[in-house]
Amino acid sequence: MKMFLNKEELALRYDLSVPLSRVVAMNPEVAKPFKRYQIAPVWRAERPQKGRYREFFQCDADIVGASSMLADAEIIAMIFTILSELGFDAFVTKLNHRQVLTALGEYSGVPPALLGGLYRAIDKLEKIGREGVRQEMIANEIPDAAVEKILALVALPVDDLHAWRETLRAYPRGVQGIAELEQLLGYARALGVKPARLQVDLTMVRGLEYYTGPIFETVVTEPKIGSLTGGGRYDGLIGLFSKNSLPATGTTIGIERIIDVMDELQMFPPNLGKTVTQVLVTVFDAERRAAALALTMELRAAGVNAETWYDADGLGKQLKYAAAKSIPYARNHGGRGDAARFDDGRTDASRARQDCGASTRKIFNRLKPCAAHLREKFSTV
Amino acid sequence: MKMFLNKEELALRYDLSVPLSRVVAMNPEVAKPFKRYQIAPVWRAERPQKGRYREFFQCDADIVGASSMLADAEIIAMIFTILSELGFDAFVTKLNHRQVLTALGEYSGVPPALLGGLYRAIDKLEKIGREGVRQEMIANEIPDAAVEKILALVALPVDDLHAWRETLRAYPRGVQGIAELEQLLGYARALGVKPARLQVDLTMVRGLEYYTGPIFETVVTEPKIGSLTGGGRYDGLIGLFSKNSLPATGTTIGIERIIDVMDELQMFPPNLGKTVTQVLVTVFDAERRAAALALTMELRAAGVNAETWYDADGLGKQLKYAAAKSIPYARNHGGRGDAARFDDGRTDASRARQDCGASTRKIFNRLKPCAAHLREKFSTV
Repeated sequence: MKMFLNKEELALRYDLSVPLSRVVAMNPEVAKPFKRYQIAPVWRAERPQKGRYREFFQCDADIVGASSMLADAEIIAMIFTILSELGFDAFVTKLNHRQVLTALGEYSGVPPALLGGLYRAIDKLEKIGREGVRQEMIANEIPDAAVEKILALVALPVDDLHAWRETLRAYPRGVQGIAELEQLLGYARALGVKPARLQVDLTMVRGLEYYTGPIFETVVTEPKIGSLTGGGRYDGLIGLFSKNSLPATGTTIGIERIIDVMDELQMFPPNLGKTVTQVLVTVFDAERRAAALALTMELRAAGVNAETWYDADGLGKQLKYAAAKSIPYARNHGGRGDAARFDDGRTDASRARQDCGASTRKIFNRLKPCAAHLREKFSTV
Repeated sequence: MKMFLNKEELALRYDLSVPLSRVVAMNPEVAKPFKRYQIAPVWRAERPQKGRYREFFQCDADIVGASSMLADAEIIAMIFTILSELGFDAFVTKLNHRQVLTALGEYSGVPPALLGGLYRAIDKLEKIGREGVRQEMIANEIPDAAVEKILALVALPVDDLHAWRETLRAYPRGVQGIAELEQLLGYARALGVKPARLQVDLTMVRGLEYYTGPIFETVVTEPKIGSLTGGGRYDGLIGLFSKNSLPATGTTIGIERIIDVMDELQMFPPNLGKTVTQVLVTVFDAERRAAALALTMELRAAGVNAETWYDADGLGKQLKYAAAKSIPYARNHGGRGDAARFDDGRTDASRARQDCGASTRKIFNRLKPCAAHLREKFSTV
């Protein structure tokens, strides 16, 4: 059956934040704070090319119903934990605040209709430098007086909260935004985030209109691939779907980009994804299959991931399979030897040692001291 | 951004078996047997109504590259394990074999073009009885002589392998199909499947054309909802995408129907899905937040699922949240009492007992003997 959509107007989901907001708005009885993660495909009308897909996975984590910076800090701490556990060590989560950006518009006197052009210009500061930002602002029709005020502001170090607060002190949104960033930094550190992994950048802009508070995105220094995560506080979005507004904050984690970076930097463990099987129960001949099955079930009942060889093939082929999948142990049932043991991690059919007459009990006893090692080995898979 | 598809011809995935076959055919280096499960959305051009959705989840498990009935038995054993662990006890996995159905056509002399009508008729045997099947065969233009031969055959008990083998003994496909079913039954029992959960039904027909060997589907006696699982052996499908054919077998598990049945029979544990949090760290006032965070991190480092309350709310609101989510323990940090402990499972804000001055160490010691209980409690979630 093929399903052609050209006769109807249909839309496919393009993000997970708007559906989350709808669900929360439509189910007011859900206890708050409500935390959820969701990993699911989304679709975009892209022309497919490397890094741009029509279908890709969105991976979101959000907290709804908490206005404290603690919630934002927990999101930041989660990003830190995930990337650290994946083996990243040269990443930085950049932080800014929507209200600082708003104050920056107020301070410079840029008319609201031109704010988008202003933000797009300063967002490129790191890439095109101050002179580039000047040209871009002029191209975006920012008034001359405002251009000079903005250039003076972005001459301050982007993370000098004290200097920015002094400059923006007449604009309460800016002062409050900076105060919230200070809170956020303190909470994030209390949650174990290394200070070197956090960087305030008061010129960082995230495109989406719906952010209202802190915004954050994570970049790696090497390779240059854009941001690995992006998110922020969006206290107004749920109110679009309901009479009652609810504070919310969260992030997207770019799974495809993370995989691309880990591939490029060869960060995946060499045995990744080969198998979770710990023991292959080989079968010497067809008559011994039932006994091999019983042994497999006994191993499984003891918490060992075991599988039986299915077909009536020679032992060599079975051991070759164990080697190809890096299954650390093979247990031969029936025939000459009763057990073949592999050295963990260097499984090789030709190196299979016959360990004649070992009982199943012995196999268990042998596996037991390896259990911690196996757990460690397989926890990286 | 909305994405309208009416300007292009696009198709959405409608199953997971055909994509699996393509992947295996296009990646011949994958070690065989290759086992995979996949839980993912699929789409059908249905008119939406109860039980019929345009988008729903397919949940597949397949084994590619093994022709032995052991592979089919493992699929059956997996279905048995899953449904048993979910709490089902009145289900039956019905087994038949495509080659028996083919032999049935040969035996009765029904022309190949009419076989579809023959199969549809006998598939209804349980529902409409022998007389119904007769009428249906006549309506499907099955020749009179064939109708009589079929009716004589379906007069045999549907699970009497001996009687069917005797009747079909001149048709090697039928004899082989029955022999494979006997093997499959033996292996499934060796894998721990209770005999009462297996039933051969030589009149059971599964619609899909691509099955070549055993076919299986699982039904519950109560409520009547159709099959919960359906699958079988499809040794020819991968060959459609590659020069080399590969044996394959697998099943779909109908998640939505399983959820519907578990809802109707009230099989879900009462605390299902409320939370995995074991300890809520409450906060007495804003100044003590950093200390509360540190405690939360300490609990998490010790393997306890802990969360901190985010906002500057009164203790009552925080305990209400713990009660609403059935969080078994609350630990108050700062203020008058230092810890509030709930009786597990009957958390109630009004019943919070102040346990003044308990140190974090004491909390750990108190949680330790509960660890097994907590694990048990949360393993059902």
